[in-house]
Amino acid sequence: MNKTVLLTGFEPFNKETINPAWEAVRSLAGQEGEGYRIEVRQLPCVFGAAGEVLRAAIDELRPSVVIAVGQAGGRVDLSVERIAINIDDAPIPDNAQCQLVDQPVVAGGPAAYFSTLPIKAIVAGLRGSGLPASVSQTAGTFVCNHVFYSLMHQTAGRQVRAGFIHIPYLPQQAAAHPGAPSMALAEVVRGLTIALEVALSTRDDVCEVGGAVA
Amino acid sequence: MNKTVLLTGFEPFNKETINPAWEAVRSLAGQEGEGYRIEVRQLPCVFGAAGEVLRAAIDELRPSVVIAVGQAGGRVDLSVERIAINIDDAPIPDNAQCQLVDQPVVAGGPAAYFSTLPIKAIVAGLRGSGLPASVSQTAGTFVCNHVFYSLMHQTAGRQVRAGFIHIPYLPQQAAAHPGAPSMALAEVVRGLTIALEVALSTRDDVCEVGGAVA
Amino acid sequence: MNKTVLLTGFEPFNKETINPAWEAVRSLAGQEGEGYRIEVRQLPCVFGAAGEVLRAAIDELRPSVVIAVGQAGGRVDLSVERIAINIDDAPIPDNAQCQLVDQPVVAGGPAAYFSTLPIKAIVAGLRGSGLPASVSQTAGTFVCNHVFYSLMHQTAGRQVRAGFIHIPYLPQQAAAHPGAPSMALAEVVRGLTIALEVALSTRDDVCEVGGAVA
Amino acid sequence: MNKTVLLTGFEPFNKETINPAWEAVRSLAGQEGEGYRIEVRQLPCVFGAAGEVLRAAIDELRPSVVIAVGQAGGRVDLSVERIAINIDDAPIPDNAQCQLVDQPVVAGGPAAYFSTLPIKAIVAGLRGSGLPASVSQTAGTFVCNHVFYSLMHQTAGRQVRAGFIHIPYLPQQAAAHPGAPSMALAEVVRGLTIALEVALSTRDDVCEVGGAVA
Repeated sequence: MNKTVLLTGFEPFNKETINPAWEAVRSLAGQEGEGYRIEVRQLPCVFGAAGEVLRAAIDELRPSVVIAVGQAGGRVDLSVERIAINIDDAPIPDNAQCQLVDQPVVAGGPAAYFSTLPIKAIVAGLRGSGLPASVSQTAGTFVCNHVFYSLMHQTAGRQVRAGFIHIPYLPQQAAAHPGAPSMALAEVVRGLTIALEVALSTRDDVCEVGGAVA
Repeated sequence: MNKTVLLTGFEPFNKETINPAWEAVRSLAGQEGEGYRIEVRQLPCVFGAAGEVLRAAIDELRPSVVIAVGQAGGRVDLSVERIAINIDDAPIPDNAQCQLVDQPVVAGGPAAYFSTLPIKAIVAGLRGSGLPASVSQTAGTFVCNHVFYSLMHQTAGRQVRAGFIHIPYLPQQAAAHPGAPSMALAEVVRGLTIALEVALSTRDDVCEVGGAVA
Repeated sequence: MNKTVLLTGFEPFNKETINPAWEAVRSLAGQEGEGYRIEVRQLPCVFGAAGEVLRAAIDELRPSVVIAVGQAGGRVDLSVERIAINIDDAPIPDNAQCQLVDQPVVAGGPAAYFSTLPIKAIVAGLRGSGLPASVSQTAGTFVCNHVFYSLMHQTAGRQVRAGFIHIPYLPQQAAAHPGAPSMALAEVVRGLTIALEVALSTRDDVCEVGGAVA
Repeated sequence: MNKTVLLTGFEPFNKETINPAWEAVRSLAGQEGEGYRIEVRQLPCVFGAAGEVLRAAIDELRPSVVIAVGQAGGRVDLSVERIAINIDDAPIPDNAQCQLVDQPVVAGGPAAYFSTLPIKAIVAGLRGSGLPASVSQTAGTFVCNHVFYSLMHQTAGRQVRAGFIHIPYLPQQAAAHPGAPSMALAEVVRGLTIALEVALSTRDDVCEVGGAVA
């Protein structure tokens, strides 16, 4: 029987009319590969609500792999997040006009969770396929990190691999943000497919440097 | 009769095995559009020789528009150069292992030439088509600027529009340069087509801000 | 009786001949302010050993405040770290030529610890005094983060405020790293004094945005 | 008899309340060194008027060396400009609320002028004294470049060495621009003194790489 892979993307936020994460994710809805089938969900860019939609999807779909995807305007590559931290500290309001400052994602939860994706193998797989990628040491402190933390909290101790990938602006967004890097949609979609297949096929992550001095 | 558009790209340099400028340019060889036909030439990444190959191509083809294209590793968008300066100051050796420092491109030539492309209209056209683009105030001081200056010197006073566009790494190059931005080949090719069509169809450049404080 | 403030800085690493953190910290050795006295220690830039020297100093001095300081070449300001993570992933070897990859700082320790310094009040205090400063969401995964995590692990549950501040290159270092920002030693020293005094005088941290979208 | 060195700095612009260039320059007013005396002038940040004030000062003082200094928010070091270009293209209005787009600085003037300062020797001198410095290939297209071009046009063919140096924000400015690099005033002042002394004492510029690929 096919395993289920759940991909999530956010609705647009911060005055954008599209969200590249959702554009990429929704193009993969229903897609099947060797031994897996992709389900997708759009998450609201709203503290709290985003995590609840995610939880409902996980309860419904019982996925083997979950990759939450988010827009990181200003980043240059497919950036595979290492760690989710238990803090909401929003530099801008979310889509419900709520701007949390220094609140825990989960009161009483641990300070952080590491991704359970094989992040080094994913970066190696992406680069090997000619796609720019890197390990990221911070997913920020806005709704992306909030969802990432919620995801790891929800899946802690379960038989599911979960994590978060940040992606750059699309070219058409960068056209309105002079100086911002971008990646074409087709490249992002190809990258997500590689990432989920590596997650499905890799038991132990590879040992490759992905850290930063500071 | 069709007008001729000459596009040039360089051979790979600085330890790269491909040059995105040449990859983009050669994919347009022989292409025809409304009232024009594209000719392409590869230039050596060599001071002096690059300008001579360019001159021969211009003499042979009598183009109406010439756009020289070059790789700018680290840049984020299609960067339409404003000005070529009369200096060679090479931070790395060229492909003939020559590293000129503070030599004029053309002894006794003017300090600089402005591009005769409608650079503001090109940037507006690219952005309007969803491609990230900007005016650049410097083409550097390596072989790209050398060719740009040679081109403007050769075409000075003639009925030909000429200029230079820098492009980012391709994704597969950026995969080997963590932290470097990239653009997909298809986007670059689409951008060059827009640029040359704007150059053919625009008489007076538009008045739009494209400058920098510093 | 005076409270003790412990400041630590590292020995030089990564081919540098000085470490701005140690230069700043040692200039404050023995300094006294209203109700406090500063003690300083140099830490080896070595996984494991750095944490042991720190532990011995804490055991000996029983400080009320500990601020570990480290060089972050490429950063622009006084960057007050929010969180230490339980991972060593070294992009370069440490000073004992050891390059750990994906090892925990403390086997079985929690994924992360938040700084117990009033990081928002410190940033506000620094900016209010005309010094560039910001909250940082990642201390990297090299020896700085290693020491930061060790520090928080050692002081967990104790009556001591502890955290980490990253500082830029000194101007003389940046002179050898074209493109790198810097801060003058006097500014860094002034900033550390402000930081420790804010840490001593602030009970509850202020509520000010210090987060990042991604 | 002492030679006269003219240093200029601008009034504050772009919502700043101070201009680091003027702060640095005015602290050197009347200063004397071996064989020279420094005169300073503040320039309005206004197209046209800035050049006129400069011209009057040159006519009055008959300086041997002129260094115009300007704020470049976002730059990291003392950036010695190589070339002034004959274009005004203002991304923001000047202090007279005038925002010129694609106008020549001097109608009919040459496209550009190279600095007549020994720019490579100045950069080498600064670095040798522990100050971060680099050659810059563009002074932008705002009032700084306008003054630089005016200066070179006014001094063309005369026995005077002239050029432009861009400097970063001061720390107190960067405190209000998170993410922006800065340099301490004392470092900038020291750097300007070195620059003018190198300009007075160097006949032929040194041959050192200071260029850029793109």
